[in-house]
Amino acid sequence: MNGAQALVQALQHSGVDTCFANPGTSEMHFVAALDGAQGLRCVLGLFEGVATGAADGYWRMAGRPAATLLHLGPGLANGLANLHNAKKARSGIVNIVGDHATGHLALDAPLTSDLEGVARPMSHWVHRVASADAVAAAGREAVQQARRRPGHIATLALAADAAWSPLSLPLPDLGPLPEPAFEPLQQPALQAAVDLLRRDPGGTLLLLGGAAMRQEAIAWAGRIAAHTGCGLMSEFYVERAARGAGRVPVPRLPYAVEPAMAALAPWRQIVLVHAMPPVAFFAYPGKPGRLEAPGTGFVHFSHHGQDATAALEALADALGARQARPVLAAARDRGAALPTGALDAAGIAAVIAGVLPEQAIVVDEAISTGRSFDAATRQAAPHDWLANMGGAIGFGLPVAVGAALAAPGRRVLALEGDGSAMYTPQALWTLAREGLDVTAVIFANRSYQILRGEFAGVGAGEPGPRAAGMLSLDRPALDWVQLSKGFGVPATRVHDLAQLADALRRSFATPGPSLIEAVL
Amino acid sequence: MNGAQALVQALQHSGVDTCFANPGTSEMHFVAALDGAQGLRCVLGLFEGVATGAADGYWRMAGRPAATLLHLGPGLANGLANLHNAKKARSGIVNIVGDHATGHLALDAPLTSDLEGVARPMSHWVHRVASADAVAAAGREAVQQARRRPGHIATLALAADAAWSPLSLPLPDLGPLPEPAFEPLQQPALQAAVDLLRRDPGGTLLLLGGAAMRQEAIAWAGRIAAHTGCGLMSEFYVERAARGAGRVPVPRLPYAVEPAMAALAPWRQIVLVHAMPPVAFFAYPGKPGRLEAPGTGFVHFSHHGQDATAALEALADALGARQARPVLAAARDRGAALPTGALDAAGIAAVIAGVLPEQAIVVDEAISTGRSFDAATRQAAPHDWLANMGGAIGFGLPVAVGAALAAPGRRVLALEGDGSAMYTPQALWTLAREGLDVTAVIFANRSYQILRGEFAGVGAGEPGPRAAGMLSLDRPALDWVQLSKGFGVPATRVHDLAQLADALRRSFATPGPSLIEAVL
Repeated sequence: MNGAQALVQALQHSGVDTCFANPGTSEMHFVAALDGAQGLRCVLGLFEGVATGAADGYWRMAGRPAATLLHLGPGLANGLANLHNAKKARSGIVNIVGDHATGHLALDAPLTSDLEGVARPMSHWVHRVASADAVAAAGREAVQQARRRPGHIATLALAADAAWSPLSLPLPDLGPLPEPAFEPLQQPALQAAVDLLRRDPGGTLLLLGGAAMRQEAIAWAGRIAAHTGCGLMSEFYVERAARGAGRVPVPRLPYAVEPAMAALAPWRQIVLVHAMPPVAFFAYPGKPGRLEAPGTGFVHFSHHGQDATAALEALADALGARQARPVLAAARDRGAALPTGALDAAGIAAVIAGVLPEQAIVVDEAISTGRSFDAATRQAAPHDWLANMGGAIGFGLPVAVGAALAAPGRRVLALEGDGSAMYTPQALWTLAREGLDVTAVIFANRSYQILRGEFAGVGAGEPGPRAAGMLSLDRPALDWVQLSKGFGVPATRVHDLAQLADALRRSFATPGPSLIEAVL
Repeated sequence: MNGAQALVQALQHSGVDTCFANPGTSEMHFVAALDGAQGLRCVLGLFEGVATGAADGYWRMAGRPAATLLHLGPGLANGLANLHNAKKARSGIVNIVGDHATGHLALDAPLTSDLEGVARPMSHWVHRVASADAVAAAGREAVQQARRRPGHIATLALAADAAWSPLSLPLPDLGPLPEPAFEPLQQPALQAAVDLLRRDPGGTLLLLGGAAMRQEAIAWAGRIAAHTGCGLMSEFYVERAARGAGRVPVPRLPYAVEPAMAALAPWRQIVLVHAMPPVAFFAYPGKPGRLEAPGTGFVHFSHHGQDATAALEALADALGARQARPVLAAARDRGAALPTGALDAAGIAAVIAGVLPEQAIVVDEAISTGRSFDAATRQAAPHDWLANMGGAIGFGLPVAVGAALAAPGRRVLALEGDGSAMYTPQALWTLAREGLDVTAVIFANRSYQILRGEFAGVGAGEPGPRAAGMLSLDRPALDWVQLSKGFGVPATRVHDLAQLADALRRSFATPGPSLIEAVL
């Protein structure tokens, strides 16, 4: 047995069943070891950002880490932007990064780089393993790190000679990893929230984030709101929010500074449930970075190292709200006509709400088009909504790959801006190869539309011709239908809401991936 | 005047005339400042690796740095792989990376990351500027750093508030930068080379790299070889090699370990002219990393901080070789018939040699297909050959963008593997938008063909079905004609050598970009 084979065994015994790979020479022994590993599914991406984004999506839906297999420092570098997003989403990922053999590093061959330096900004844990006998324990430790609560990014640099050398010692014990523990809820935080919700429920907002937006957690939050009369809201970005008919509707904090401040202005106190004090996405001249009204009080109730459902259940119990009946989102009348006409944001949202299948997974990178989808989709069939937590674009299609692999049988709907989809279009090929049930909708406004707003927002005035050229994606227009077919994914183009509804229905009814270019 | 405007002025006064941009909100003031800057051409890329690769190509052909404009840590991260290649090519680049406003960083908004940490592994110089008054001097310093000999990667983190705030002090002096100085040639090194070439010229190899492969430098090397009888060879990777008819032919060291060792075995001494002792690209079990025969002597004659042409001229003078007549590559008989038949590497090379236009720029990322092009193209029309110095794939199409912009009127021929082109296909859109005279040939073997060889090379045996799946790009086959058209670049597919020759001739005769998919 060599080090690569030992690593594959360690990953499998630690519960890793999926590896998103873009390998090179230094990873060939790991690839060879896959032939003997029936339980480890290896999925090829044609760019590293596909692999890291897929691992993020996999964690969000499976709740356990996938591995990535990347090629030296530059390969890891190509995966960093989606590792940034995954880190902000608190997703657990095990990156296996092959490096030159130990003796080769001193020769400064072309691909030599500071691998650990590349890893560190987007990893919680970085470790180099340079001997075959140390590989299994290091791999197991990497999985354990990734499975912490919340999830961590664990990056293991695997020297090529550690992978190819035979073990001289027996494998260490590779039994299953213990279940990672949550930190307990702090009694003073619980008491502070209880006091507030008893004293001034009408002035108090429960701001939910992270795991507090899963189905069971919002059910408890809904009971608390029904019992006390407090408000409910979620952070703008949530890595996986349970939404739709029959669930507690939790409105999102708006993205833009002014509407976000307006939404928070009525509240005298905010109870942070797996959430941070709300801040602006970007800084703007003369505008505040913090979004709450001056003088707003905060209770830091629970954080991402704790069990959100248990915390909210404890709060409900302390308030006597266990039997309260929460307000639930009504189901949309399935017989109601869908809107027709031009492709505007409100119409698109209504169409999506009307045709979304049960238990769909929506991956939201619709950027400027998608910001207003929240209210209109609350009565859609029950679904999960996955947002880009780090703001690095190129997140959506890769995350759709991982989500679809983690949740077979559920349709994934990836909502993409044309600008953002262009960062990782290679993910389409993996969708085709794996035959994944993913519908990608590209909102083709043929510009960095969000930047047109931001240009004004930062006080830069009106763009002149040279500046405007930096914000437009026309000249030439990207043809997403041809691009998609080039990657092996069937595609169609729609120009109005009726065509969009038809195309979505057809896609949802057809196994495998398809792409819809919605020309705005 | 605000900080962004001051930066644009500083770049222009320091000789920067081109900026490869993929901006976001934090860069909007810089974009706005472009409207007032007629002398700074700003070129949009739809992915950051396009921008950094283009800057590399620009330096190689223009000999002066371009700027890039990138969006925070994750945007810089997407550009790192091509910065790695540029760093190994000793290209000078000025990266302007917008960051959050200084006060906003503490709020940990989604896009916050360790920007300097991301920059450091692929930069020689990293600097943060957080006040408008400091921007101009910092920008000027960044250009000065980039223009060092050899070129450096200079990364300037520009806080958004430094960009948008008005200056409170007058602009510092922004006169042209002084010409960067070369280090002088060391007399003991010169003497050692002279002694060797007098004592044992038949056993001595001049190994040329970097700027020693430019046209004037190889002319001196050719005179030295003609006068003394010593051997000439170049490193396998050279960032810009002058080649073709009427120039001194300098064979490349082979890529693979065994042929490289065979090529070096005859030489008792190697004089390193802007070159390193030759090493294997990767380590392989049981094979050496150093490629010279045991006991080979080395003279470290000159390095990349020195003037290669002046160094070789001095050596020629010291040897009395100034008047020697070097062997020059004969011109291919333009009337000779081109080979026809199946698309194999030898035939492809002969076709390229036959149709390449005068002063073409060849960007070589043909990987497994292109390794044997060296000998067959030595008699082509005079051209420059640009190799991937860092080994991070996704280099070719972006470098072609920058080379074409730096050398208008010269045809760029980008030779791409299908695997490697897939890392940065977004560059095709920039070729279309800017109407650049670039011919991209995609060698579609529909696999990571190089890895099939490497799999055996590292001793992993024969790939089983799961391993083979990680090395193949079929299921589905990428359709490069559709992909190219989707990006706005006309494309055609060829299946034999005659079709390839026709398609190349047509492309060379047609202004603007086109793509040829050569199905192997």
